[in-house]
Amino acid sequence: AGREYCSATILAEMVRENPAVVKKDLQSVISQPGKPKLGYEIKSAIRDIEENLGYYTIKNAILIGAGKLGQALLGYVGFDKYGFNILAGFDTNPELVGKTITDKNIYDISKMQEYIKENNILIAIVTVPTKYAQEVTTKAIEAGVRAIWNFAPTHLELPENIVVRNEDMAASLAILSKELKNKI
Amino acid sequence: AGREYCSATILAEMVRENPAVVKKDLQSVISQPGKPKLGYEIKSAIRDIEENLGYYTIKNAILIGAGKLGQALLGYVGFDKYGFNILAGFDTNPELVGKTITDKNIYDISKMQEYIKENNILIAIVTVPTKYAQEVTTKAIEAGVRAIWNFAPTHLELPENIVVRNEDMAASLAILSKELKNKI
Repeated sequence: AGREYCSATILAEMVRENPAVVKKDLQSVISQPGKPKLGYEIKSAIRDIEENLGYYTIKNAILIGAGKLGQALLGYVGFDKYGFNILAGFDTNPELVGKTITDKNIYDISKMQEYIKENNILIAIVTVPTKYAQEVTTKAIEAGVRAIWNFAPTHLELPENIVVRNEDMAASLAILSKELKNKI
Repeated sequence: AGREYCSATILAEMVRENPAVVKKDLQSVISQPGKPKLGYEIKSAIRDIEENLGYYTIKNAILIGAGKLGQALLGYVGFDKYGFNILAGFDTNPELVGKTITDKNIYDISKMQEYIKENNILIAIVTVPTKYAQEVTTKAIEAGVRAIWNFAPTHLELPENIVVRNEDMAASLAILSKELKNKI
């Protein structure tokens, strides 16, 4: 909000953490040390944090499974801010295949491997029903995908060299519920 | 898969962690120590982990914003497994209000505060567009909500005593992308 500097104390208040924890977390991320009484120079600190979080890295992904969750991700405005781009969606549902959802083409899943190869896609977002998750993931990896963002509530068997991130919604809700219980 | 015991080494392989890290993480969670060469007794270990994660705590929530992401969460099968229950959804869209989505009623948002009070709702899931997130959250808290699961990519100003969990999809994708970059 117009400021040039921001202290660890203010950051700590915003995220409800101990200032010492914030300082420690930022130590290895921010290249310029904070100035006494002023704190971090905001512009360069943001750039350092973004770089550390990978905002200037691999930007393109495909989405496998264009159901409700898939459609929500295709339309998620938060990705644009960081330059992420879901290039296309893949599904088996004839009511979805051939359509566009928030400007993204939905193709038949039989076209997926060809698309991955032609466009050098490295990231696949898996939003299919649980029972299909392993199968579509294996196919994507065969075609060249190296990172899986898995929303299906199941454990995927993946080769050693594949990066995976499991988004378990129920676990997130469980953690919130636990924290709430501890507080009341 | 029919086994009675599971070692930290097997668990570590599944989650791609160091066995020592797994042992340390489980130390404060699992009540019965692992048996030499056998490992943890699976049934009681699962119960301990679930309890630690809050699976036996507050189960009911409401959803504010029944767009695509909201609908995806209303239909998310993973919640049932742990007994979580989204009781109802709230929205302003006349095409959604009065309908049911995967068996959950969608009510007009003007009915939300009354519903929270009558049903003693403590958890609200916020899936409205960013510009409405603060307003609906404030209203939910006024009516008695104590925990917010926020999917809007924005920072909410909340009273001290409110538990919050921000689900930033772009940040998740950024972390995956960074890990991938470090690996190739």
